[in-house]
Amino acid sequence: MSPLKKLAIVVGLGRGGIGDNLAKKFSAEGYNVAMVARSSLEHLEKEIPNSKSYQCDAGDPTQVTNTVEAIKLEMGDNIDCLLYNVGSGTFKPFAETSYEEFELSWRVGPAGVFLWTKACLPSMEAGSSIGLTGATASWRGMAYTPSFASSKMATRGLAQALARDLGPSRGIHVFHVIIDGLVKLGDGKPTDKADNEYLHPADIAETYWQLHQQSPNCWTQETHVAAQGAFSSIASI
Amino acid sequence: MSPLKKLAIVVGLGRGGIGDNLAKKFSAEGYNVAMVARSSLEHLEKEIPNSKSYQCDAGDPTQVTNTVEAIKLEMGDNIDCLLYNVGSGTFKPFAETSYEEFELSWRVGPAGVFLWTKACLPSMEAGSSIGLTGATASWRGMAYTPSFASSKMATRGLAQALARDLGPSRGIHVFHVIIDGLVKLGDGKPTDKADNEYLHPADIAETYWQLHQQSPNCWTQETHVAAQGAFSSIASI
Amino acid sequence: MSPLKKLAIVVGLGRGGIGDNLAKKFSAEGYNVAMVARSSLEHLEKEIPNSKSYQCDAGDPTQVTNTVEAIKLEMGDNIDCLLYNVGSGTFKPFAETSYEEFELSWRVGPAGVFLWTKACLPSMEAGSSIGLTGATASWRGMAYTPSFASSKMATRGLAQALARDLGPSRGIHVFHVIIDGLVKLGDGKPTDKADNEYLHPADIAETYWQLHQQSPNCWTQETHVAAQGAFSSIASI
Amino acid sequence: MSPLKKLAIVVGLGRGGIGDNLAKKFSAEGYNVAMVARSSLEHLEKEIPNSKSYQCDAGDPTQVTNTVEAIKLEMGDNIDCLLYNVGSGTFKPFAETSYEEFELSWRVGPAGVFLWTKACLPSMEAGSSIGLTGATASWRGMAYTPSFASSKMATRGLAQALARDLGPSRGIHVFHVIIDGLVKLGDGKPTDKADNEYLHPADIAETYWQLHQQSPNCWTQETHVAAQGAFSSIASI
Repeated sequence: MSPLKKLAIVVGLGRGGIGDNLAKKFSAEGYNVAMVARSSLEHLEKEIPNSKSYQCDAGDPTQVTNTVEAIKLEMGDNIDCLLYNVGSGTFKPFAETSYEEFELSWRVGPAGVFLWTKACLPSMEAGSSIGLTGATASWRGMAYTPSFASSKMATRGLAQALARDLGPSRGIHVFHVIIDGLVKLGDGKPTDKADNEYLHPADIAETYWQLHQQSPNCWTQETHVAAQGAFSSIASI
Repeated sequence: MSPLKKLAIVVGLGRGGIGDNLAKKFSAEGYNVAMVARSSLEHLEKEIPNSKSYQCDAGDPTQVTNTVEAIKLEMGDNIDCLLYNVGSGTFKPFAETSYEEFELSWRVGPAGVFLWTKACLPSMEAGSSIGLTGATASWRGMAYTPSFASSKMATRGLAQALARDLGPSRGIHVFHVIIDGLVKLGDGKPTDKADNEYLHPADIAETYWQLHQQSPNCWTQETHVAAQGAFSSIASI
Repeated sequence: MSPLKKLAIVVGLGRGGIGDNLAKKFSAEGYNVAMVARSSLEHLEKEIPNSKSYQCDAGDPTQVTNTVEAIKLEMGDNIDCLLYNVGSGTFKPFAETSYEEFELSWRVGPAGVFLWTKACLPSMEAGSSIGLTGATASWRGMAYTPSFASSKMATRGLAQALARDLGPSRGIHVFHVIIDGLVKLGDGKPTDKADNEYLHPADIAETYWQLHQQSPNCWTQETHVAAQGAFSSIASI
Repeated sequence: MSPLKKLAIVVGLGRGGIGDNLAKKFSAEGYNVAMVARSSLEHLEKEIPNSKSYQCDAGDPTQVTNTVEAIKLEMGDNIDCLLYNVGSGTFKPFAETSYEEFELSWRVGPAGVFLWTKACLPSMEAGSSIGLTGATASWRGMAYTPSFASSKMATRGLAQALARDLGPSRGIHVFHVIIDGLVKLGDGKPTDKADNEYLHPADIAETYWQLHQQSPNCWTQETHVAAQGAFSSIASI
């Protein structure tokens, strides 16, 4: 792992989805990649060149501080890209949602974004970027998303605040990608929709990469992606 | 305090603003009013007929449960309207915002709405309503609102989820009023803008009352209000 | 028809829907009501006290000028409320929509709002209001609404521009009500949904009336209404 | 001009802004480029390889039909990308806006998009795309944009309708780029803001190109771009 390479941190991966593909894409583009998840990522470490994995609860203040310290020590003190991709959706009506679940959604969502940004910011320079993963629930709450939409909309508000702050003052590009639909995980499990109704995570990673590459003369703060076959029903816009 | 009257609970009041005027309006319309705040509301209790005050940290699970139990015991077990108005805005850039402040914004915001709805719902019937106070930050995050916008957008998402759930299934009307501008508190302090650039809380209370009165044949879920003199700069829509 | 009464103009009515109920409501509240439609409204004239009907193509510049002149001559030169309710939805995919239909949607939509506002404004004073009827398509375009959404979103943009202009400068309240769902027309025709999934036009008229009554200390520019039984699927917010 | 190359049509260019840079970018990527404007584009034709210019009023039905026929005859019958970039902003309050100006905004805006889509669609196959240029006014109307916002929001609604229709049914990607700020035209005129507060059109063209290249497994329908130095005041999101 060359100390001359740029460094990307991907938080939230390991299941063959967006996070895994972000790690692969940034590695393929010549970055060192720190991979952070609650469970072990040894399999990805072997598969992805110049990657290193860290086990960490992304919403725990102490663990976040310690993990970022370890990454800086082992992979270098200049973070070029922080990609926060944690937050599995919980889909339950209010009556079935406990306060603990509601709090957990917040903790691994906007609270995690807050903690990781706090910890990484001292090592980020102008030209670096922070990319955040949103969902349809970033736009609105449905009957089955009291905790998920609440968490995702909170992250959206935080993303906008960070973008308007860190962009002009420090030259850091904060972007938020709203994943408007189902993602094909490639885990071989049978699916109940046509293939063209699923977003493919490798293509999503391409969009993140392009956003990370944008010139400060033309930055996108918020965008969304949807699958062609599901376009008629996108909630998005 | 007649047990035959309807019951409204106002959470978050005592400073001469929206909450105080909600209590006055519902009292004037013939309701018993339970008033909940962290500090003592004895002065309001004297001023507002058929009102009773309760001290409670609105974001503390145990205190909320206990307070709602006390209200039901003392004021009746049928809650016709729950008005959640807590959440003073914190306006600070990210660098000056601590994790504790960020968490507190969430706790007194969406977490409080969650807890109060959980505690009151068993005592609410079709025709009752839940009214929530939003802010310009319910729509977007600015450089100085990383915690406030995150909290307010979370509440908006929760409001939409509750409305889509409790409306059709239980006939409970959940509405969210986005206060898009500065509110005149009537505390006699000198102000730095023209009078017509301030929202007046008594008029805001009028709008809440009308929303509470709407027929289920025509419900508004989300609305906003702004002062006439500030209309050109409303962020709102 | 007393010249001492206030005057409301309702453009777009005659089919038992929102427009008819606006005329009835404002008449019941003591207004003279000028009713404008392409077809004859004699039946409403008989039914609604202090009303007078005018035949006019609401999107034709000359007819609009002439009709407003006639109204002012016959009903008085002080217009307290202009309610623009024209614009039946056309629901067709792009391939089946002709340019003539696309243009017509615009003509009876935003172009009509423009013309009526131009013609009435010289007779409107501070405290008067302009109320506009929107639809779900005011928020977004679907596969079957290339012309309807284009027209309705144009009206929404114009409504916002007028509100931000005429509010602060002239004290005129411009409000836009997004009708988010199907309206029960009461024409006795069988319907294919449950009664509680329809908005009732008399209740909608109540909401317009309350918006017209709002104090300039607390104005709503844009709001939406939906039926309780359809709340889970509202596109709205 | 090889008939084997792909074909892009750029409507609205000639002033050194977005349109010119779209033509240059697509030419550089190996496309033939048809350039359409009201005024002569001979200078661009000389500058841009494999380009050909056409004079045409983009909002005139007959001229549009004739121009597309000419393009197909001279440049081939397979259109891979239609980029509609017409519509200079008019910034005037309602009182100073004539009906003729209001109509013109519509004609060169959404009506032009409608006409060009109608004319080009028969020559577009799956994998082709339609890119539309929006503005801050695509989101909302301000006191000085009654005609501009009305036109731009109409285009946004039409873009969404076309995307939801032509995407799933024909595999055509319709995207809408909201230009949220001032564009540096490079015409040497002195400017009154810092350089980093202007969007640079060559970078904007890069974003269009990336959107045109997106896989149908991950399409963006609507996005926005802003300059880094102006990020704190973006209206956008």
